Amino acid sequence: MNKWLITFWRCGLAFVLLLTIVETGFNEEAQKPPLSEETEQCFECHSVYTPGVVEDWLTSRHAMITPETALKNSALERRISSETVEANLRNVVVGCYECHALNAEQHKDNFEHLGFQINTIVSPNDCKVCHPVEAREYSESKKAYALSNLRENPVYSALVETIISLKKAEAGKVIPLQASDATKHETCYACHGTEVMVTGTTEIATDLGDISVPTLTNWPNQGVGRINPDGSRGACTACHPRHSFSIEIARKPYTCSQCHLQPDVPAWDVYKESKHGNIFFSKAYDWNWSNVPWKIGKDFKAPTCASCHNSLVTTPEDEVILPRTHDFNARLWVRLFGLIYSHPQPKRGDTYNIKNADGLPLPTTFTGNSAAEYLINAEEQAKRESQVKKLCKACHSTTWVNRHFEKIDNTIDETDGMTLAATNLLSEAWKQGYADNSNPFDELIEQEWIKQWLFYANSIRYASAMTGAPDYATFKLGWWELTHNLQKMQHLMLNKDSGKLKREQK
Amino acid sequence: MNKWLITFWRCGLAFVLLLTIVETGFNEEAQKPPLSEETEQCFECHSVYTPGVVEDWLTSRHAMITPETALKNSALERRISSETVEANLRNVVVGCYECHALNAEQHKDNFEHLGFQINTIVSPNDCKVCHPVEAREYSESKKAYALSNLRENPVYSALVETIISLKKAEAGKVIPLQASDATKHETCYACHGTEVMVTGTTEIATDLGDISVPTLTNWPNQGVGRINPDGSRGACTACHPRHSFSIEIARKPYTCSQCHLQPDVPAWDVYKESKHGNIFFSKAYDWNWSNVPWKIGKDFKAPTCASCHNSLVTTPEDEVILPRTHDFNARLWVRLFGLIYSHPQPKRGDTYNIKNADGLPLPTTFTGNSAAEYLINAEEQAKRESQVKKLCKACHSTTWVNRHFEKIDNTIDETDGMTLAATNLLSEAWKQGYADNSNPFDELIEQEWIKQWLFYANSIRYASAMTGAPDYATFKLGWWELTHNLQKMQHLMLNKDSGKLKREQK
Amino acid sequence: MNKWLITFWRCGLAFVLLLTIVETGFNEEAQKPPLSEETEQCFECHSVYTPGVVEDWLTSRHAMITPETALKNSALERRISSETVEANLRNVVVGCYECHALNAEQHKDNFEHLGFQINTIVSPNDCKVCHPVEAREYSESKKAYALSNLRENPVYSALVETIISLKKAEAGKVIPLQASDATKHETCYACHGTEVMVTGTTEIATDLGDISVPTLTNWPNQGVGRINPDGSRGACTACHPRHSFSIEIARKPYTCSQCHLQPDVPAWDVYKESKHGNIFFSKAYDWNWSNVPWKIGKDFKAPTCASCHNSLVTTPEDEVILPRTHDFNARLWVRLFGLIYSHPQPKRGDTYNIKNADGLPLPTTFTGNSAAEYLINAEEQAKRESQVKKLCKACHSTTWVNRHFEKIDNTIDETDGMTLAATNLLSEAWKQGYADNSNPFDELIEQEWIKQWLFYANSIRYASAMTGAPDYATFKLGWWELTHNLQKMQHLMLNKDSGKLKREQK
Repeated sequence: MNKWLITFWRCGLAFVLLLTIVETGFNEEAQKPPLSEETEQCFECHSVYTPGVVEDWLTSRHAMITPETALKNSALERRISSETVEANLRNVVVGCYECHALNAEQHKDNFEHLGFQINTIVSPNDCKVCHPVEAREYSESKKAYALSNLRENPVYSALVETIISLKKAEAGKVIPLQASDATKHETCYACHGTEVMVTGTTEIATDLGDISVPTLTNWPNQGVGRINPDGSRGACTACHPRHSFSIEIARKPYTCSQCHLQPDVPAWDVYKESKHGNIFFSKAYDWNWSNVPWKIGKDFKAPTCASCHNSLVTTPEDEVILPRTHDFNARLWVRLFGLIYSHPQPKRGDTYNIKNADGLPLPTTFTGNSAAEYLINAEEQAKRESQVKKLCKACHSTTWVNRHFEKIDNTIDETDGMTLAATNLLSEAWKQGYADNSNPFDELIEQEWIKQWLFYANSIRYASAMTGAPDYATFKLGWWELTHNLQKMQHLMLNKDSGKLKREQK
Repeated sequence: MNKWLITFWRCGLAFVLLLTIVETGFNEEAQKPPLSEETEQCFECHSVYTPGVVEDWLTSRHAMITPETALKNSALERRISSETVEANLRNVVVGCYECHALNAEQHKDNFEHLGFQINTIVSPNDCKVCHPVEAREYSESKKAYALSNLRENPVYSALVETIISLKKAEAGKVIPLQASDATKHETCYACHGTEVMVTGTTEIATDLGDISVPTLTNWPNQGVGRINPDGSRGACTACHPRHSFSIEIARKPYTCSQCHLQPDVPAWDVYKESKHGNIFFSKAYDWNWSNVPWKIGKDFKAPTCASCHNSLVTTPEDEVILPRTHDFNARLWVRLFGLIYSHPQPKRGDTYNIKNADGLPLPTTFTGNSAAEYLINAEEQAKRESQVKKLCKACHSTTWVNRHFEKIDNTIDETDGMTLAATNLLSEAWKQGYADNSNPFDELIEQEWIKQWLFYANSIRYASAMTGAPDYATFKLGWWELTHNLQKMQHLMLNKDSGKLKREQK
Repeated sequence: MNKWLITFWRCGLAFVLLLTIVETGFNEEAQKPPLSEETEQCFECHSVYTPGVVEDWLTSRHAMITPETALKNSALERRISSETVEANLRNVVVGCYECHALNAEQHKDNFEHLGFQINTIVSPNDCKVCHPVEAREYSESKKAYALSNLRENPVYSALVETIISLKKAEAGKVIPLQASDATKHETCYACHGTEVMVTGTTEIATDLGDISVPTLTNWPNQGVGRINPDGSRGACTACHPRHSFSIEIARKPYTCSQCHLQPDVPAWDVYKESKHGNIFFSKAYDWNWSNVPWKIGKDFKAPTCASCHNSLVTTPEDEVILPRTHDFNARLWVRLFGLIYSHPQPKRGDTYNIKNADGLPLPTTFTGNSAAEYLINAEEQAKRESQVKKLCKACHSTTWVNRHFEKIDNTIDETDGMTLAATNLLSEAWKQGYADNSNPFDELIEQEWIKQWLFYANSIRYASAMTGAPDYATFKLGWWELTHNLQKMQHLMLNKDSGKLKREQK
């Protein structure tokens, strides 16, 4: 080609490039989607008094497109799961009023606020207007029952009460008092959720003068199993905080890690020490955290919690590898978090209805027999396992993947065996009267036993499942501790003075 | 508008855009601010021999603008707190010589260096030339007294000596020897600071040949309470390292976390596990870490250590929410770090002058009575608490905030109660002769007691204050350990063999 | 200059700028380097079936330039250490087939795969084709012998077996069973490497139908001392994962941290809490992680693992400070990881051939005498220490650096002293029959002793070496634990019931 012709062609290209940039700027301005009149009024005060919330919202997808526009996306790209959205919400962005005024009649926390009827707490039942599939999946999952499963299960409640109750000491003896609501909310219930109730109305002093607001008990709380004033279960903000409703934050493992971490459920801790974690920390700045669908290899190069447990993941060519789910158990076949032993996943989210062979609401007995009728069967297990393997195979060979999962099976057997060894030592202590099993959680040797299954055996299983964290599984909270702990328990037995029965016999 | 007209207009715009880019490039070159002659000479060697330092400085604000220019900023935007800067410093950037030659007469570490009189250590008293407000605030704070408060307090010194002294064992008995200076500097004093003294002159071999330099003891050290050769207290580089003097680094919680972390002051650890930490880790790449003033919601979307404890924070509209302070206690009403119990903040930075009811230099007695006259009163506490609440309210409702702070109060009461239970067990052990209170820190049961207040009770209070880290407060170093530890102490009592008295009686 | 002239000149400049951008775009397309025919065929299936691998590779340097082009770089900039590359590999990029078909005759894992002869595992011996210097350096280092050093050393093997063997409990006694291969692979061997062997052929079901693949034992594994089916030692992917072969990932400390972390080798943990770590976390996003050579001050502003231990580091002016090495011991003069005491680095990578004065394959005796003839001498130590100091001096004064290293020497002495105190207590227990030294690792008091040197003394030495982590060295896993642990051991002695001998005598 003639040299001048090339230059001319290039100038043209450059010009078009410039035009595109400028045009995009123009159109963005022009296309700014409309706020509802109500939300505009919210902003008048709240951009002054709670600017953090407003600025956060401004960065959200909710602030940028209307449901009408969102519905135009292809099925794979869509982040809204309703097929239609009612007229009054369809053509405005999802602002303050659009969420905080929904389903007012069901909200015991609804109150008159400067001319508007406002709900304090937006619940999954409200989000359901645009996200019905997610709300339904979630509502039947273990997460939605996280509070109930703790509170309605007398065994777990006894553990909670034993650990977090205030104690006093008199004449060298420890005397347990009661656990307070506030401490429950700052410990177990912070992840599991509280039951938020409306008990009246409070006058509060604000910069705008006194206003009346609902009196909420057990609040603030963002636990995944929160029971809301409208009767629904869950808090979407637990993972999509707070007014950015960010898919990026929800996909980043920092979010899951708030609750799933050492010493009891060290998913985050072993991920950090895995090769997947290594790659995540090194390259995450370079990945696309917001793309829907999430394209393996293209958008992200190593799995995070979300990619394995709930995201819609496709190949770069839009072949679906795994569909989206907000039931975080749906892809799981085995429950690594041993209560007391690992076991097939429960069939239903409300696990407090389980009854084992000893009549206790536990998925296994103290000696490891599983309450099979409440748990998924081998066929369902196989189905779920093969689902997850599909994801692994996008980067790993079939042999690699099969061998990895074989190792998990062995790890489960051996760690359950190490728990059984500890249980046998404890049973002997109970039998010989060196400890008293009326409360199986309150004496020294009993607490060593708890560590065996709640901290150490769990840790090793998580490390195994996430193909990494070998040091964690060896020394940190793994085999070293499992083995050392048996020596400690044996020592307490030999010293024959680890419990209250013995003490009282003196 | 005519289509061609639009295109024409756009072309014009693109052209102007281009011009601006080019012009900026030009002017930056033209405006490069001048180095002093002395600093230019420093660079001749140091860009060859310590290029890391020079490159670091080149990225600093000190390298980019002169005090003269800095003084032109509006009051809110200004990072320099002097109203004027003396003539010889005003119109050059803040280079090597500008800092390392200040106040030479006060510097015992001043030495002749290739024709210049140079101070090895730049101290807060030198930084004061441009930053007098910060230097003054800091100099009266607990941080400035961090070394003295440890070294001049016989109780704390005994704890230090007991923990870090070398020990030997003979015939099954542990015999404490002395703690070395080097080990003090690598443990407690690394955060608290050392006293750097000049004891003479040393000839050292360098790539440039032998040179004479001051002989410094207890060096290097960047502890916050360092006592400098010019008599001043503190090390600005502890938080603004090292020659970039970065406000970004100081604002990032990684800086504070060097000293404020588990197991004794786990501020960083509980922040990491909080929702604020979750948002920080997920989105920090997207925030403006250098803006002054720091605009809540706009520059950052979740608080870090700095935003609550010392930064100048405004709304996006430049309304001041909290003014800047370099007295890191100034906004605090309660001291969570229980020594031995939590208590109102001390009135002054030099806490070794406190005397409690037992005559010990501690803010509370071993049974929890506070040395009230040395501590701020309820009115001052209320004032400070309401200050911090202003920040919370930029994102949270008044009810949310009030309820949060109510929970902290309860947590303080309960964790102090759990410490008291442990103290009662220990008192019983002392009374019955199973341990010897001549040194309250050196026997097994005494060390279990230390863990109760120094590790576990503290952890729970930090977790409560930062509205998160529930797993930390439950299992990691929280209620689980508080409860388990009481069982351990009780077990030691029952086994009646935890201390030296008993041993000697044999 | 005339104002119009300037404007005119600027327009010209802008135009040239635009041309350059456009031209670059063109040429990149034009210069896309060629794939081999074989690799193109690999892609046909693998971009569908393992898209994650393919996408990862596409981001790699291997995908972007041919060896021919790589060889044209200057010596300092070159990442390829062979002086020539054979013709059939020289002019295509380094794709699937280029690596997975090398040296087929040596590969017991070679198999016929849809018309090609493919090796499952690419080994250091294959990478050697382009990277011979790195492969040779690595092959003689401790890393290459990481598996053998564990497996062929009966003392270390006994420790492994004691910790990770399954146990059962009967009648209050713990009974050790055997350690499984799977658990070895998920704990110790995950870092140290496995011996991957080919035991036959397996038919596996894939999405493409059944295919035959080699049956590999002890696989998958990426440990640094892996013994490969071709007889070579090591796994380059341990640090350059997985098909991006990233120098960025290898340089980031997240990679090293997978194996070098608490509680036994807490290099990562103390780095995180050091000032260097503080700067890394705050500013790493801003550094150049891929530049070769790596320019101190310019590309990075605080050291990471790689900068001190193996990278080619230069000044911004290309003066070499330290040459590249893939023998990760080459710059080390002392081994902080106390086995059982710290000691000069071993002369050779195969440490299982060491014999100490007691005839054990350990670098020191249980009382601290070093097996000097197997360890480097003082002269070699001094040489290596002065090498590393060169790096420190790029940012720190000579005095600063000297004083830092003096402190390490003291720390080594004191922590070895604290280990000796624990050893003396244990010896006394053995002597008096309260424990049985036939296996020195399996009883309670023996395990407390292990913690003294494997967890606590090590931690303090790492913290000292990395000039930071004072809280770690004080309370986390440092002096507090060293001191507390001696009290625990003494208590077990007094209670005289810590071992099996005593038990059996009853």
